[in-house]
Amino acid sequence: MNNPQLNKNGELQHLLSTEGLPARILLDILDRAAGFVGGVDSNEIKKVPLLQGKSVFNIFFENSTRTRTTFEIAAKRLSADVVNLNIGSSSTSKGETLLDTVDNLCAMHADMFIVRHSQSGAAHLIARHVAPNIHVINAGDGRHAHPTQALLDMYTIRHYKREFHNLRVAIVGDVLHSRVARSQIHALTTLGVPEVRVIAPKTLLPTDVEKLGVHVYHDMAQGLKDVDVVMMLRLQNERMQGALLPSAQEFFKYYGLTQDKLAQARPDAIVMHPGPMNRGVEIDSSVADGSHSVILPQVTFGIAVRMAVMSLLAER
Amino acid sequence: MNNPQLNKNGELQHLLSTEGLPARILLDILDRAAGFVGGVDSNEIKKVPLLQGKSVFNIFFENSTRTRTTFEIAAKRLSADVVNLNIGSSSTSKGETLLDTVDNLCAMHADMFIVRHSQSGAAHLIARHVAPNIHVINAGDGRHAHPTQALLDMYTIRHYKREFHNLRVAIVGDVLHSRVARSQIHALTTLGVPEVRVIAPKTLLPTDVEKLGVHVYHDMAQGLKDVDVVMMLRLQNERMQGALLPSAQEFFKYYGLTQDKLAQARPDAIVMHPGPMNRGVEIDSSVADGSHSVILPQVTFGIAVRMAVMSLLAER
Amino acid sequence: MNNPQLNKNGELQHLLSTEGLPARILLDILDRAAGFVGGVDSNEIKKVPLLQGKSVFNIFFENSTRTRTTFEIAAKRLSADVVNLNIGSSSTSKGETLLDTVDNLCAMHADMFIVRHSQSGAAHLIARHVAPNIHVINAGDGRHAHPTQALLDMYTIRHYKREFHNLRVAIVGDVLHSRVARSQIHALTTLGVPEVRVIAPKTLLPTDVEKLGVHVYHDMAQGLKDVDVVMMLRLQNERMQGALLPSAQEFFKYYGLTQDKLAQARPDAIVMHPGPMNRGVEIDSSVADGSHSVILPQVTFGIAVRMAVMSLLAER
Repeated sequence: MNNPQLNKNGELQHLLSTEGLPARILLDILDRAAGFVGGVDSNEIKKVPLLQGKSVFNIFFENSTRTRTTFEIAAKRLSADVVNLNIGSSSTSKGETLLDTVDNLCAMHADMFIVRHSQSGAAHLIARHVAPNIHVINAGDGRHAHPTQALLDMYTIRHYKREFHNLRVAIVGDVLHSRVARSQIHALTTLGVPEVRVIAPKTLLPTDVEKLGVHVYHDMAQGLKDVDVVMMLRLQNERMQGALLPSAQEFFKYYGLTQDKLAQARPDAIVMHPGPMNRGVEIDSSVADGSHSVILPQVTFGIAVRMAVMSLLAER
Repeated sequence: MNNPQLNKNGELQHLLSTEGLPARILLDILDRAAGFVGGVDSNEIKKVPLLQGKSVFNIFFENSTRTRTTFEIAAKRLSADVVNLNIGSSSTSKGETLLDTVDNLCAMHADMFIVRHSQSGAAHLIARHVAPNIHVINAGDGRHAHPTQALLDMYTIRHYKREFHNLRVAIVGDVLHSRVARSQIHALTTLGVPEVRVIAPKTLLPTDVEKLGVHVYHDMAQGLKDVDVVMMLRLQNERMQGALLPSAQEFFKYYGLTQDKLAQARPDAIVMHPGPMNRGVEIDSSVADGSHSVILPQVTFGIAVRMAVMSLLAER
Repeated sequence: MNNPQLNKNGELQHLLSTEGLPARILLDILDRAAGFVGGVDSNEIKKVPLLQGKSVFNIFFENSTRTRTTFEIAAKRLSADVVNLNIGSSSTSKGETLLDTVDNLCAMHADMFIVRHSQSGAAHLIARHVAPNIHVINAGDGRHAHPTQALLDMYTIRHYKREFHNLRVAIVGDVLHSRVARSQIHALTTLGVPEVRVIAPKTLLPTDVEKLGVHVYHDMAQGLKDVDVVMMLRLQNERMQGALLPSAQEFFKYYGLTQDKLAQARPDAIVMHPGPMNRGVEIDSSVADGSHSVILPQVTFGIAVRMAVMSLLAER
């Protein structure tokens, strides 16, 4: 299959998914991001003119203030002009098609689209449609992919663990509905992590999840045994009332990350979460705020990683 | 009547309507816009510092992401600071009057207002109220006027047809409710187009529309015969359920622009639409995406025309 | 009590309330603001690079287009990057705690937070939580404080009256629910105004309001007698239907500022209002637009005062 993310020279043309991206491109993004970040929690990200005069459009068909903000900040740190479009309440509701909306924005000389959409494949559809001078970044499409989240997670892991080839990583929670989990699994396996585990109740796992190259656990004590990295997933509020789960309390009892359960992991294990957290549902506050948590550094690295992706694409 | 759009030297002070603007000013805007645009579909609009340090306020009393975005981009390309205000949900709902809101923004040192309002005459009211150093651009008021849309349409016509004095132009659709149509008719007649036609069912035409200097047709085959330019109007969704129209399907049958009907026009006719399009209602996809369509170049020219208007006003 | 607004050197670290701020700091802000403003109604505020490269976050948990806009303009005039967050509809509704939201924004390298919240104390909570390199400005919290409004009022008074030590000032209206009134009273007494009066029906006064050092009047004729400054308060729409007031008409009859009532004040008295005004409820149009009114200069000074506060904090 022709990879829509790469141009004919094998360079990154769009960032749509971590699936199908070669390790050299993932590592190139991480290396580049390192140039934008100082130490953890340092305030050293400087404004640079790499996207001066470029127009970046945040087109969000699904509301997400947090993700939109991280891209907006990253683009402004690169000196781009940023236009925010919440399309939910605008042209699409006037009967315009998705691709007509995109064509119009292209005609306004957009240079880059950051796309968030509730439908899997929306960013791919747009990427296939636009002219070669326009770049698309998937900021989350349905249950499919959220590649910048996975990339910032990889940056965080490398920052704390240096290497990928000797790690045991566990992804915990609602894998079934998580675009984040899918993107993480592809990135981890591509970067050579030898053992990726998923820990979840059967009702929150995709069928045939093993085909992605992961080991399945339904028990936290077994699944967390000797892992180096614990990647928690957010439990969507709507799942908590659904038929897939008895209750948020019961989920926490079996799959919520507590100090007790974390004790199974390696002593120097790091704990990650893509945010926003449901404290007391998928993670206990003592862990979220504890010494193993690298949840806030993830956010900081997220700005640098997004700057890296944008500046890489803008060079094409 | 004193023309509120011109200052004592006959220069543009506000852009409120194409009605009453002399041809020299319309042409001045088109010429200036040409300086901001490269070839069609080219990406050559550069950022210029003509509005550096100026504050442009998009005050939208009626929601329109598309129009707001075009002005925001134009202003940012001119290096202005842009502040977006969706007034629907803010001070007016707190009981403040329109002019109090405007006075407050003026006191914050606004330099330019882009105004969208559901009431005809709102932009005029504001223009009459503000100090001479502040300029107002009407971005659509009720059924009255939408001058920048008409100006970008004139730019598009001149781009493809070079001259106005030898053209036959047809405006098709819901003329009755269209501020775009009114502004187009005034601009076309001022610029010397010898034959402007409107094609619509009787229920979608204003009474006495002939007094605007147009020829009325109720039949597409006759109305499109030998025209050089076809300007489609958007059919508002709310009309489709109203008493004025039997159904969207029937409207399309009689007034939707298809390849068949377009065959009546001149072989080199261009097809325009202000967007957003209702494909299959007022225009068939094969025409919208066909070789006669200049719908996307209209959008590109729209940025340049808005930059031209803003920079012209800022010189006052 | 340790003052959370000052650092160990007694310099302004956060602006949370006018309560507890020493006169030297209030005056420092006013002096600095004077450097940003030309004459009244002049358009001389220039863009300056004092916050170049800094990220200012407008985090509004309560909607206020007007206040958000004034801070956005002030920050942009200082060349900051501004990110607007309406949190009402975002992460908090996803179950994230206030402090988790703040931690995340800090991790994105925020330099300054402008906080509006319906809960009294929200800005204090955030200020106590953030790292020392981050500054918090309270843009209104519940019924507690709105310090930049009070500071711009002080600027306005000094502009027109030169000195504070010889003034008689009346605050009129719904003192009970007004964060503005509380902040004004603290600022006026700190700056040495010898006589501060509040004029309101008993139902719209806090119990023990005299302990704040004000004189209480229930009658406008007596309360306005010989005052130099009349500071009107906005009557919230929701009060007008409430049990505390018989009707908006009756409120206007007894407490609405008319020319007749204003005649009791000194001939050179100034009339102020924080906006947005309810004409015909708390203030008559002839007064709002009359020669004593300095309501629009207040808005202009408000931009300068906010620039002063931000630039002062950014120096820390």
